[in-house]
Parts: sequence; C-alpha cells; structure tokens
Amino acid sequence: MDLNNLCGDNGYLLEINCSLHLLKHAVTIYRDMKIGIIGAGDVGGTLGKRWRQKKHEIMFGVRNLQSQNVQKLIEVDQNLRFGDIKEAVAYGDIIVFAIPWASVEETILKAGNLSGKIVIDPTNPVTPDLKGLALDNTSVAEKIAKLANTDKVVKAFNTIGAKTLNNSIFDSNRADLFICGNDSHAKRVVEELAIDIGFDVVDVGPLVNARMLEHLALLWIELAFRQQLGPNIAFKLLRKKAEF
Amino acid sequence: MDLNNLCGDNGYLLEINCSLHLLKHAVTIYRDMKIGIIGAGDVGGTLGKRWRQKKHEIMFGVRNLQSQNVQKLIEVDQNLRFGDIKEAVAYGDIIVFAIPWASVEETILKAGNLSGKIVIDPTNPVTPDLKGLALDNTSVAEKIAKLANTDKVVKAFNTIGAKTLNNSIFDSNRADLFICGNDSHAKRVVEELAIDIGFDVVDVGPLVNARMLEHLALLWIELAFRQQLGPNIAFKLLRKKAEF
Repeated sequence: MDLNNLCGDNGYLLEINCSLHLLKHAVTIYRDMKIGIIGAGDVGGTLGKRWRQKKHEIMFGVRNLQSQNVQKLIEVDQNLRFGDIKEAVAYGDIIVFAIPWASVEETILKAGNLSGKIVIDPTNPVTPDLKGLALDNTSVAEKIAKLANTDKVVKAFNTIGAKTLNNSIFDSNRADLFICGNDSHAKRVVEELAIDIGFDVVDVGPLVNARMLEHLALLWIELAFRQQLGPNIAFKLLRKKAEF
Repeated sequence: MDLNNLCGDNGYLLEINCSLHLLKHAVTIYRDMKIGIIGAGDVGGTLGKRWRQKKHEIMFGVRNLQSQNVQKLIEVDQNLRFGDIKEAVAYGDIIVFAIPWASVEETILKAGNLSGKIVIDPTNPVTPDLKGLALDNTSVAEKIAKLANTDKVVKAFNTIGAKTLNNSIFDSNRADLFICGNDSHAKRVVEELAIDIGFDVVDVGPLVNARMLEHLALLWIELAFRQQLGPNIAFKLLRKKAEF
C-alpha cells in the first residue's frame, strides 16, 4: 500500500497519522468480527471454536437447542451464544451456512435480510453415494448468490475437513484454503478470517469457479473415504518463482 | 512385502536368495523400460528427456519429423529415437499419448495393437476458452480404455505443468502426481516411472476417477493462466497421522 499516494505528501507527521488511521481501520475491519454460524455440526462448531479463540464474536443459529451437536459445544464452552437462524443472521456481519447443501435453499429463504452481509458457503453438493456432484453447470455458491440476491458470497472452507479446520499444520506446511467470490472486499475479509486460524489462502477468482472448488472437494472426499487415506489430508498449492 | 510369506520359511539363505530374486524381478520390471511417447510437445518432450536421464529407452512417435518441436528436441539430444505413431506404439511396453485430447480418438484408431501395453493418458478435455471441460459423465482416459479395449490405461501427468515435469522440487516439498486406473500392476509401473523423475504419487483409485483428475487440471489451468499465478505451481496432498 503506497501511503504517500493515499495520504498526500505533506510531510512525515501526516504520514504517521495517516498510517495510524489506516491501521485502526484495518483493525476495525478484521478484528472482533461478528459472525453468525448457521449449523453447529463439525464444520460450524469447529469454525466457531477457532474464531472465538481469535476474539471474534460468534452466534450459532440452530433449529434445536437440545440437539447433540449443540450440547457437545456447550459442554466445552458454556459462554457460547445461540439463537435461531434469523437471530444469528441478524447478529452477524458475516454469515456461514455450515449446513447440508440440500437444506441451503430452504434456510436462505427463511434467513431474513442478508443484504450487505458477507455470506460464506462451505457446502458441497455431493450425491448420496459420495461419487459425484448433484449440480450441473452451477454450484451451491452461485445458487446462494441468486437466492439471497447478493454479490458478497464467498466459497470457502469446503475443500478441507473439520480436523484440518481445527489444526491446519502438517509438519512444515500449512494447509491451503481455496476461496472464490465476486466481491473483492468480501474475499479479503474471509482471507483474514482464514489466516487468523492458520491457513494459507489461494484466491481462485470469481464465484463461478466455486464449481471447481466443489469438484476439488469431491476429490478430497474420494481420497479420505473411498481410498481410505482418512480425514487428516489437505490440499496445498506449491509455488515457486519462474525458472528459465 | 513379507518375504517370509512369499518365499516360505526354510531359513535364512533361502530368504536371501529369494530377496535377490525379487530385487532382480523389480529391476526387470522398473528399469530400462521401453516407452513410446506419442507427441513431441512440452509434455511429451519433457517426459522423454527426464526418463532418458533415468536410463529408460524412449521412442517418440510423431507425424512430422521436420516440426519445430522435433527439431528442438534433436538440438538438445541427437541420439533421440523417432518413428511414426505406429512404430512408437510397436516399440514401447508403455505408451504415452501426449497429444491434444481432441486428436486422441483418431490417433488411437491409427495406433495399431495396444494389447498388453500400459497406456498413459496425460490429456485434458478443456474447452477452447479454458473455462470448462468438454466431456460430461466420462473422461478422456475412459474413452481411451474403450477405444483401445484395454484395462491398462492409467491417467497420469495431467495435473502438472511441463515445468514441474522438468523439476518437481518446491523448496522442501516434492510435487504430487495424482494417478488412477483399473489395473494395479499398470499403476505400480507408472508410479515407479513418476518416482524416478522426482514425484510423490497419490493413487486416486479406479479409472472412473479420471473425471476428478481432469477437473483438478482445470483448476490448475485457471490458477496458472486466468489467475496469473504462472505455470510454476503444483498440487500437493498434505497428510498426517490421525489426531485424537
């Protein structure tokens, strides 16, 4: 970021003031985010736990406070905040739909106003036999963007297992989080939330590429379960500078 | 490999003899393979160069000995062996179809007898705009298996760029080669050929999963070109033991 360009070039003090202002702005954007997590299963529960450790404010939106998943979360942390789905959506600046993909449409329609909120889609439209995807020429993420009439949908957290959400370190490597979306500010916020809990981030471009990330998830599922490598696996994009 | 089970348990000497026999067998299988490479572009040319460095015997099968690609290869190594497509297929125990996917069908039909040979398919059925795959509910690899009426097709070398074929090392990591196929011996041979030139191998299961690997290649293409990360990128599957 070129501070001189942003703040003018009227001397050193102005530059320092301007830096502090930008820093405060950055902190305001990325720290203490209010996040509504719809669903309290492995993915939602683990994301909530990890983000709370990083001082973000979480409300889980659930249908049934008596469910096993909810009770398991409360056992570990009695200060968790729960509400129904509408309450969690109203609470969060960022909403994560950590629910089975087949429930997404119904849930979005009942969720209330998503306008202005960043929506994270970690779902995968896998067929019941886990061998294929149930959607052609679209993705859950694109369907959410249409249903909620928003550009702020970010596909993320769909290509890694809950165990890796809990601990992204593999020896000397950090697992990658592949994300995509049409709104660059929304992607930046999700990127920071991912870095916060230990991921490197790969930006795969616009939301249409959620189709590629849903296919990548299918490969993860195949390797973890049918090829029996187990859920402690994660994709990494290796990179190096150009070689001639 | 449990040598006692394979060789009986009649004492130490037998075990040593048996080990030597197995070792010789392994060397016979994996060293000095005769490989016919159809196509002399980036992928075929680089594979040929790397395998020759590892003492495998290569014949390139090409349509036009005067082509720029062929001349470039000859400039670097005047001892390369060239033939037409039928000659290279007859020569190799392993045949690599390193050609554009749209030419595969015509080439297979003209290739002569592929019976008993291991066929490696490194192609990707990308659409001309590089945004999608041109095949639904099948893969090039499955089409090859049908056309050539063989089970010995292995999908491999389609999810990495030619630069990574040339040098698979990324700092402390080796790039992964994702392979799949229905014949386990054929996969073992391809695995050894990949390890020979510096790859770790991930077995993705049966040939039908070539669909997943063709989708993975689409993600590679998107990241390298449209997202402008460049061709020096490669996928790695991180793994760790179970955590409780």
